[in-house]
Amino acid sequence: MNAEILAVGTELLLGQIANTNAQYISQRLPEVGVNVYYHGVVGDNPNRIKNALNIALSRSDVVIMTGGLGPTKDDITKETVAEVLNKKLVLDENSLNVMKAFFAKHNRKMTENNLKQAYLPEGSIIIRNKNGTAPGCIIEHGEKIIIMLPGPPSEMRPMFDETVVPYFRNKCNSRLVSRYVKIFGVGESAVEDKIMDLIDNQTNPTIAPYAKPGEVMLRITANCNTLEEADELINPIVNEIKNRLGDAVYSTENKEMEEVVADLLLSKNVTISVAESCTGGLISKTLTDIPGISKVFISGVVSYSNDAKINILGVKPETIEKYGAVSKYTAIEMAENVRKISNTDIGISATGIAGPSGGTEEKPVGLVYIAMATKDGVEYKELRLWGERTRIRNVTCLHVLDMVRRYLLKL
Amino acid sequence: MNAEILAVGTELLLGQIANTNAQYISQRLPEVGVNVYYHGVVGDNPNRIKNALNIALSRSDVVIMTGGLGPTKDDITKETVAEVLNKKLVLDENSLNVMKAFFAKHNRKMTENNLKQAYLPEGSIIIRNKNGTAPGCIIEHGEKIIIMLPGPPSEMRPMFDETVVPYFRNKCNSRLVSRYVKIFGVGESAVEDKIMDLIDNQTNPTIAPYAKPGEVMLRITANCNTLEEADELINPIVNEIKNRLGDAVYSTENKEMEEVVADLLLSKNVTISVAESCTGGLISKTLTDIPGISKVFISGVVSYSNDAKINILGVKPETIEKYGAVSKYTAIEMAENVRKISNTDIGISATGIAGPSGGTEEKPVGLVYIAMATKDGVEYKELRLWGERTRIRNVTCLHVLDMVRRYLLKL
Repeated sequence: MNAEILAVGTELLLGQIANTNAQYISQRLPEVGVNVYYHGVVGDNPNRIKNALNIALSRSDVVIMTGGLGPTKDDITKETVAEVLNKKLVLDENSLNVMKAFFAKHNRKMTENNLKQAYLPEGSIIIRNKNGTAPGCIIEHGEKIIIMLPGPPSEMRPMFDETVVPYFRNKCNSRLVSRYVKIFGVGESAVEDKIMDLIDNQTNPTIAPYAKPGEVMLRITANCNTLEEADELINPIVNEIKNRLGDAVYSTENKEMEEVVADLLLSKNVTISVAESCTGGLISKTLTDIPGISKVFISGVVSYSNDAKINILGVKPETIEKYGAVSKYTAIEMAENVRKISNTDIGISATGIAGPSGGTEEKPVGLVYIAMATKDGVEYKELRLWGERTRIRNVTCLHVLDMVRRYLLKL
Repeated sequence: MNAEILAVGTELLLGQIANTNAQYISQRLPEVGVNVYYHGVVGDNPNRIKNALNIALSRSDVVIMTGGLGPTKDDITKETVAEVLNKKLVLDENSLNVMKAFFAKHNRKMTENNLKQAYLPEGSIIIRNKNGTAPGCIIEHGEKIIIMLPGPPSEMRPMFDETVVPYFRNKCNSRLVSRYVKIFGVGESAVEDKIMDLIDNQTNPTIAPYAKPGEVMLRITANCNTLEEADELINPIVNEIKNRLGDAVYSTENKEMEEVVADLLLSKNVTISVAESCTGGLISKTLTDIPGISKVFISGVVSYSNDAKINILGVKPETIEKYGAVSKYTAIEMAENVRKISNTDIGISATGIAGPSGGTEEKPVGLVYIAMATKDGVEYKELRLWGERTRIRNVTCLHVLDMVRRYLLKL
């Protein structure tokens, strides 16, 4: 079965919010054998909703609509769908009672306009809303299935999980299962070069590359009946990719780089400290995004000015004078010294020019030095990055974390 | 003119990412007189792209497509659009040269598959991509305008801002102009209470409140022909809101809190240092997101462990023993000491429990102490925040920055 997700709401067309409902539903539908082929968004306008729904019904088996089920005049999804399907809206006493109880529980007065939420298309399967007032519904109309859910994610998600997912699980056999191979340190076209034959020769599973700043992800998707079958189809491909790309593969479990590094630090009980200049706290912030990291993350120093590098970290003034703050020598001292003052197993550092200003011909924007000090000595890397400030800072952070990851893998 | 935004990319249909490109474009198009009536998403499949494009062309004046312009076989947007419009793809020598220079500059080998990115529909206006390899284009096809932009937001946004916005600005007359009033320290319903009469009585401009974690934004939108007319309509409303809400209004220019604080620090030439525990580098990272901040941001210390608080910041061990690391006394010493060792005008600090674990009955998750030391002494605040780790860290950061903002306003 294939599906289209049709969101109704002018707030989406004004860009006030991103369509995270479509993302959520899209993530979950393949699990129950429904493939999402289209997303659509349309405003609170009856004619445009009608047209969009007719197009969706002409090309999709399932249409999942979100939004426009509330009590206000703007909320016209149900009314419009009923008109298109030529169905009456009938009062559902049960929904009305649930709604009355909801208002009583929250000590709120139920205004007259709420009543219309209890009217649903005749013959539909009603979806209870435990976190709000508007119920949803499933309509089986000939060969087509139309589902309506409220717009607020806190209401939509539980209703989807508790009613829509089991509904499809009962209907479908085959499903799509995806695994992700995440790669750092090799460009998208180089990755494709190395696995072109795999991409070309596969039909099930399929392999699709996807680039993010500084990294590449491969999505391997199997069409199958059971999770066991998915493993059988996907695992040999994942292993072959790992063979070809080696250590550049940092996750086959859809983890972020910082999660992989945090897992390694925690499982090997290795402590770490960070000295950063151009990244300005980003590396420490990224590592401390991970709950539980306090067991191994000891401290960070954002030595943004030369004075801070000298006074807090103890970088030698001569080093900065002779080679500059953006130099491998400064990076190395930063890493060694933060490791010393923090008394950690690993000390890492980054110093560079994130831009947009501050670059020279000799030291352009994007020139960054990173270093790592451990009991085994110190290593460093010169990076020449492109893009704007945020990208340079983010990609620097990935390079530093990747350096730590590769070290930890060998421990 | 009305527009449809059509994203191409299976990753969207699998829910790997939300369609933030559509959100970004939707926010900006009304400024230049273009109303967005539809969003669509379709996978990397030639027939479905063709059908979706034909539907879009039948109902919209402008179709803005994002994604599928890259070097891989999956990237078929340009090829498909050219086929629908019956246009040839022709080599753009200039794009080829730019791309070659891009690879040379970044010391990367240009693989053969990159070539196809330099082929664009004949007669199109080419949009340079300064942050990646795939150029975009604008095609004027009879009464219709088709625009293609790459998928990665870091590439799409600058191209949209620098080329597409000016392109429409030249074409359109009537437009929607929005101004934003940003408020910190007052809840959404309290804000609405104070300005309810303004919201109810306005038709042009309109006022819409919008809540974000820890803050409230009001969008004031005027329908007008010129920017001068917009000012005349919007300014009195903005002034009235400022009168009613006072210092809680931190920006009327759609600036982020950190931009406002950075502007104040730079214009008053006040230096700052940061000592942070629960926020783990986020405050330093947020301030150093701002280009040019190095003139006033001197250093940060992420004293995550007690040892780091004692050894690097010189917090008294007795303070931590007696009151705990999460206490006003520790926060105060952190702020005072980071100010001293960094030799800055302001020292700020945050220490708390970001969760999900680490809370106790006495000191629950969400308890945070922040402090600010200046030449005028030290002040602190106890926060009791709710939500998960990321929210607690982000809202703490806002509170610290807001404390600095209010101090700087009085200088």
